[in-house]
This record gives sequence, structure tokens and C-alpha cells, in this order.
Amino acid sequence: MEKGALLYEGKAKRVYATNDEQIVWIEYKDSATAFNGEKKAEINGKGRLNNKITSLIFEKLKEKGIESHFIKSLSETEQLVKKVTIIPLETVVRNTAAGSFAARLGIEEGKPLSKPIVEFYYKDDALGDPILTDAHIEELQIASEAEREEIKAKALQVNKALLELFSDLGIRLIDFKLEFGKDASGNIVLADEVSPDTCRLWDAKTNAKLDKDVFRRDLGSLTEVYEIILTKLGGGQNV
Amino acid sequence: MEKGALLYEGKAKRVYATNDEQIVWIEYKDSATAFNGEKKAEINGKGRLNNKITSLIFEKLKEKGIESHFIKSLSETEQLVKKVTIIPLETVVRNTAAGSFAARLGIEEGKPLSKPIVEFYYKDDALGDPILTDAHIEELQIASEAEREEIKAKALQVNKALLELFSDLGIRLIDFKLEFGKDASGNIVLADEVSPDTCRLWDAKTNAKLDKDVFRRDLGSLTEVYEIILTKLGGGQNV
Repeated sequence: MEKGALLYEGKAKRVYATNDEQIVWIEYKDSATAFNGEKKAEINGKGRLNNKITSLIFEKLKEKGIESHFIKSLSETEQLVKKVTIIPLETVVRNTAAGSFAARLGIEEGKPLSKPIVEFYYKDDALGDPILTDAHIEELQIASEAEREEIKAKALQVNKALLELFSDLGIRLIDFKLEFGKDASGNIVLADEVSPDTCRLWDAKTNAKLDKDVFRRDLGSLTEVYEIILTKLGGGQNV
Repeated sequence: MEKGALLYEGKAKRVYATNDEQIVWIEYKDSATAFNGEKKAEINGKGRLNNKITSLIFEKLKEKGIESHFIKSLSETEQLVKKVTIIPLETVVRNTAAGSFAARLGIEEGKPLSKPIVEFYYKDDALGDPILTDAHIEELQIASEAEREEIKAKALQVNKALLELFSDLGIRLIDFKLEFGKDASGNIVLADEVSPDTCRLWDAKTNAKLDKDVFRRDLGSLTEVYEIILTKLGGGQNV
């Protein structure tokens, strides 16, 4: 596989073409951003951690029957994935009230929800990623009703699998953000990443935050807590 | 009917008990507020205009088969209504993109929507009335699924009736906010008011704003445009 031209650079990743037009080459960057890019920093080692964690999680999801765009890890910071057209929705699944959700609705952070909630946000930095109702998604023609319901169902499947996975590691899965894309045949495929950048993960015993909130809220060293997650997933430095 | 104790004072109205415990006495105030109370003013005559416009609209809705809490007008600024417990949802129906909706979703103000959209906002000033999805309404136990769907259906019926009514008067009904309450038997009843405070109304020929946006955006005299609406509805000063 040969690395081709840079196709896209996001806040946390670069995407390159390859000599196979169905496959792209992802490079994880060391950049951390929060609050729609208002807070940012370069954090040595973050790209390696997210690349390794995401690769492990996509492999474990596959073992549980959930396909994603992930093909294989190439290096400490690079992976090959299936090329998809990202659907401009941030699909958020919440098990416990936290962050903007808790603040917006006046629910205490840490309160378990009566059942998992799927939310959609419009992936549009200029608009600040506004929350969308089903009717908005229809009006904006982002996804058909059938596609939206397929995404919702897939997101809940991922939630079930991740809840099991993290629970076995002594971690509470509070909430997470997924992105989906469409492949060349029009199939909806889980894409982007699943990492402490995109999940809220709390230590099941102490409720210590093991995710990007450490960066958002200046609670300590991001790489230290991401390293804890990587080690628990079986991908630590000495493994 | 005797006016009793003050039960509640909102931004635009005072609610008093009466000697019939199923009926309350509403007094419309001259206060104008916008942006969750950040902008406010006392505007002489506004209470009279909103009381008269709301009374006329509730009467016209009744002629079209849509019941509300409205019983009868008492004076220039007062009316009797059925006592209900307000459901803490602001139900918004939109026919054309405008205001916060247009800004939030990046849709040009004035663009007709492909079909009417019903949105729910949490009626909670401290939280700034956040938008709610169906799942949020369920989690917050604001309304059951059946109640939510009943409210949605009623809101769309009101939209159909108001579109007819305003279209006959040469006015475009852009969007509006409704509130519903539950009566003593648990029936869901259209409540609050329907006025240029709660509707966006544009002149069908010129698109001139004939509603509270005149106050929100400092476009001219609020009472002058409210008087136009009242006159078109057949309730002008010389009628």
C-alpha cells in the first residue's frame, strides 16, 4: 500500500489517499482541541495513544460482530481504513448525564439515565455543531428517515458492545460520539475513531475521569490517563 | 365572577384565582421582553393589544373546531380562562426558517421549509429554554410519548387553522410558539396566548415584520404593528 496525496486535515487526523481508491491512510496528530476548537494544545504522544486505542477498540468491536471502516494498524500513529463519505452527523450515545448534556438540561452530572439516549449534532464547526431533531435532519436532507433509524440502531449496538468491553475493564462508559460514513456501495459504516477523545470514561470505583475532560477541565495529564486506557485494553507499552 | 389572589406573575401576564376553582383571571401586562428577559421595556398599550388579539384568535380557532383554555374577554386587558397546569414545553411550529432556527441550522431567513416542523423547548428560564428531542422529554418525564404525540398533532392542527386565518388577511405565518396545559380531568388543552408576541407574522406582499421582532431588532413601533394585526383580525379601535 502506498501513501498518496493529503485528502483532508481535521483537528486530530490527516487523511491521505492510497493506491487503492477504496482505502485511505489515516495519520493521528498530537493535537488536542476542545470547545469547538477554542482550546487547543499539542500533546506529545496523543496521536500514538488514540491510534492504538482506536485500533484496539475497532478490533474488539469486530469480534463482537460490529463492522467499522478500520482495516489495519500501520504504525504507532497510522492506520488504514475503508474510504467512506462521512455523514455530517455527530451521533452521541449517553448512558449517564455529563458535560453539555447535564448542563443544558439541568441534570446532575453523574446521574444514570433511565435508558441510553441517542442524540444527533450537525457536524458543522461554523455553526458550532448544533443539536438536531429528527425533523431537522429531514429538512437539511442529511439522512433519510431509514438511514437515520439505521444509524440510531447501530449506535445502540455499539453502546451495548462498548458497555460490556469497558465494564470488564472496571470503566464506566458515560457517553461517546460516533461518526458514520457511506462506502462506495452506499452502505452505512461506523467510521472516525473511538477513543478517550470521543468517549467519556470514568473509573468504576473512583469516578476519576479517564478521557478528554482531563484536558477540557485541566484535571491532569492527558497522556497519563489515555495510557491507563490503552494498558487496560491490553495495548500498553510493555505488551 | 370575582377576582381572587394573585397566583402567578410571568413576564407578560398576571394570573389570579377566581371564586370558581376551575377558572383563572388573566391580566395582560404592558411589559415586552426578549432574549430570555435580557431585553425588556414597558410599552403602553401592549397588554390591551395582546389581550384583544389573543381573544380574537382563540375565538376564531374555536370556530375552526380547535378548543383552548379561553373562556371570554373581560376588559381591554383581562380575560377569563380555564385553569390548567402548564406542561413545561414551548411547542414551536415553523413554516419558514427565521430567527434562532435559521441561525442555528445555517438556513437563510425567509426560506420556506419543505413541511412544517414542530420543535419542543424546555420551558425553564434558568436553563435558557433549551431545545429538547423526544428522548429528552421522556428522560425528563415532562410528557409521556402519547401526550407528546398528541401535543404535536394539536400543534399541527393549530398551524393549519392559523395558516388559513392569516393567509386570508394577507399575512405569512412564519412560525409560532404554543403552550399546552392539563385540565382537572387530565385533558391536554391549548393555553397561554397566540399573539404577535408568540408568532412571527410577515406582510405577505412586503415581508415587513408585524410581530415582536420589531421590538427584538429595533425595527420600529411595536404597538403600531400590533395594531395592524388587531385591525386585520377585525378588532381595531373603530370596530
